[in-house]
Amino acid sequence: MQPQSFGTGPARSASELSLAGPDTPFAVLDTARAKHNIGRLASHVHQLGVTLRPHMKTAKSLEIAALIHGDEPGPVTVSTLAEAEAFAEGGYADILYAVGIAPHKLPRVVALLERGVTLSVLLDSAEQACAVRDASAAAGTSVPALIEVDCDGHRGGVTLQDPALVEIGRILAEGDSLAGVLVHAGESYFASTHAEQAKAASHERDVAVAAAQQLREAGLRVDTVSVGSTPTAHAATDLTGVTEVRAGNYVFFDLVMAGLGVCEVNDLALSVVVTVIGHRPEHGWILTDGGWMAMSRDRGTSNQSVDQGYGLVTDLNGTLLPQLFMSGASQEHGILSTRDGSPLPDLPAGTRLRVLPNHACATAAQHHGYHVIDSRRDATGTPVIQTYWARITGW
Amino acid sequence: MQPQSFGTGPARSASELSLAGPDTPFAVLDTARAKHNIGRLASHVHQLGVTLRPHMKTAKSLEIAALIHGDEPGPVTVSTLAEAEAFAEGGYADILYAVGIAPHKLPRVVALLERGVTLSVLLDSAEQACAVRDASAAAGTSVPALIEVDCDGHRGGVTLQDPALVEIGRILAEGDSLAGVLVHAGESYFASTHAEQAKAASHERDVAVAAAQQLREAGLRVDTVSVGSTPTAHAATDLTGVTEVRAGNYVFFDLVMAGLGVCEVNDLALSVVVTVIGHRPEHGWILTDGGWMAMSRDRGTSNQSVDQGYGLVTDLNGTLLPQLFMSGASQEHGILSTRDGSPLPDLPAGTRLRVLPNHACATAAQHHGYHVIDSRRDATGTPVIQTYWARITGW
Repeated sequence: MQPQSFGTGPARSASELSLAGPDTPFAVLDTARAKHNIGRLASHVHQLGVTLRPHMKTAKSLEIAALIHGDEPGPVTVSTLAEAEAFAEGGYADILYAVGIAPHKLPRVVALLERGVTLSVLLDSAEQACAVRDASAAAGTSVPALIEVDCDGHRGGVTLQDPALVEIGRILAEGDSLAGVLVHAGESYFASTHAEQAKAASHERDVAVAAAQQLREAGLRVDTVSVGSTPTAHAATDLTGVTEVRAGNYVFFDLVMAGLGVCEVNDLALSVVVTVIGHRPEHGWILTDGGWMAMSRDRGTSNQSVDQGYGLVTDLNGTLLPQLFMSGASQEHGILSTRDGSPLPDLPAGTRLRVLPNHACATAAQHHGYHVIDSRRDATGTPVIQTYWARITGW
Repeated sequence: MQPQSFGTGPARSASELSLAGPDTPFAVLDTARAKHNIGRLASHVHQLGVTLRPHMKTAKSLEIAALIHGDEPGPVTVSTLAEAEAFAEGGYADILYAVGIAPHKLPRVVALLERGVTLSVLLDSAEQACAVRDASAAAGTSVPALIEVDCDGHRGGVTLQDPALVEIGRILAEGDSLAGVLVHAGESYFASTHAEQAKAASHERDVAVAAAQQLREAGLRVDTVSVGSTPTAHAATDLTGVTEVRAGNYVFFDLVMAGLGVCEVNDLALSVVVTVIGHRPEHGWILTDGGWMAMSRDRGTSNQSVDQGYGLVTDLNGTLLPQLFMSGASQEHGILSTRDGSPLPDLPAGTRLRVLPNHACATAAQHHGYHVIDSRRDATGTPVIQTYWARITGW
């Protein structure tokens, strides 16, 4: 669905419309910041001598992938087959679907392979490996599969100690499906210092390399050794033995990442424009039309040293209003308060603000797409909307 | 976006497809349960002698509105102008937009009025009332407005003690825009006994009637006296002086409402079908392909006496697996655990389950629409999908 501001009403070009235009709430992507974030990680990963396979689960947009890869589609990671199909349609031919494969989804995987796309799947059990082997044989192809290896007990994966690792490798190798191993340091999202993140990155690498080594010692070929999370991708200093790094959140960043020190608040590229709709001075509240439907219910900073509520608040031009944060949310109402109970700023009904989210992946998912700005401003200093980029949705 | 199971692949009629068919995760609406819930509140509100104006912010579906109103569109409440426009398109001519009006949204309101739809707006300040008066005058119409009155300090609204109540009434009356008053007992979502809910309902009514009385004593005409929330709508025993009741969640219900005792777990009409994709017996985990993208980040039961995590689990036929709950979520991964650490049931990879949500409004919002079932089952006892109903999305 296109936002009504680009679809109806008097004809006006995108460049005539600023953030003061569209009906609120709506999501904004600041590409100046996104490009800075993209350049930072690209440079770091290049120095480490490995490939970056960005995870598109946060942005879910072909146009944002093009900010990373330019005109030449490169490797990507996706979280749904709907993303895989959309990226394949957009010319991407090297896609990793990084959620443990459910056997009934293999026909959609095979259909993409038959279109010439290298779509790799993820698994961590012999029964999934058998399903991949059998589906591959039935289709006369080889579905490439990575074995998920667990390094810190946060999600799926076999451990290095588990003989299933080699058993799965052997089943996959029977059908020429063994592509490699994958590790994700889920613990890194709770690593609150750079030193802890660097340690998580080392550990993630060590586990991945050791898993590949085990498989190779069993006589199996392992081409891909894949690691990554936004914190570990930035903190890694030595990725010897690794072939590729995954990260997704880093394009937008968010308050959780700022709370971990992976970025600064000024790096956050995603925000939601809201409008003041009321005041409750007796409670110390400003009410807006941006509730959890616009921000998501994610409260990722609630277990960090500074709980940012549902988000920090800036004016429409992006300048932080440091005394304010979004302290509450119902479906279509946001509550802004001052953290220390100091007087509320004078923000009359109709005032537009921007809210920086806890968790960009969750907030972006509440919107059909992004109103895109860069450093250009109109005569009032308000960011000018350059275009609208739709998100890939569903499964 | 249509689910791929109704859009591609070998032609098969909806009636041939059961919950074992579509790729997971997907949302399911059990209309047998929804109709039961709809009938229960309709009967109660009828006995109270007032009009029910269902809030469509939960279901966001014309087809579900038709389960309530039948072929004859009746009064509805909406949470976005996108809903208002969709319901107007669907023949609904009496719509309340129950979020404080932002002045810049008035052109869309006027456009609907000019199509012959009675679209009422909500406000709680003199500045909003002036904006409504001025927009009405400019358009040569009267935008009907309800004054929000606060009864328990949970969101917007003027208090009974605030002289702004009559001041706003006078401004609106100048342009013949004063339609009435509206109260919402936000506190009722935390009222954990029926007695407390009944008390909240009495208080909600008392405040609404007193506000109307104040305005009438000032010589102003008040036609609409609107109250409601799902808990108070069910608990109210006397609505003398009230003209209409609003409730939305009641069509689906959810674990928050079950936790308050407003319904039973067996009344929950919305669930999400997920597939088992892995096991971590050393952690006591079953992994599924339904994470927070499918369930939302809502953890509404976390402050209730029983925290249901991200949801309770049933088999595909809807039978509760009482030992299991969804204890964790990442974007596309769900973690199921037993609450007491008892052994996990044998649910191999590929097994389909259904998860009952904390908060139906938030979970439904993660999906494009509903796969609809009723009491019909296929030969294996699995619910048969009757059709697919799309949701209204965006703002």
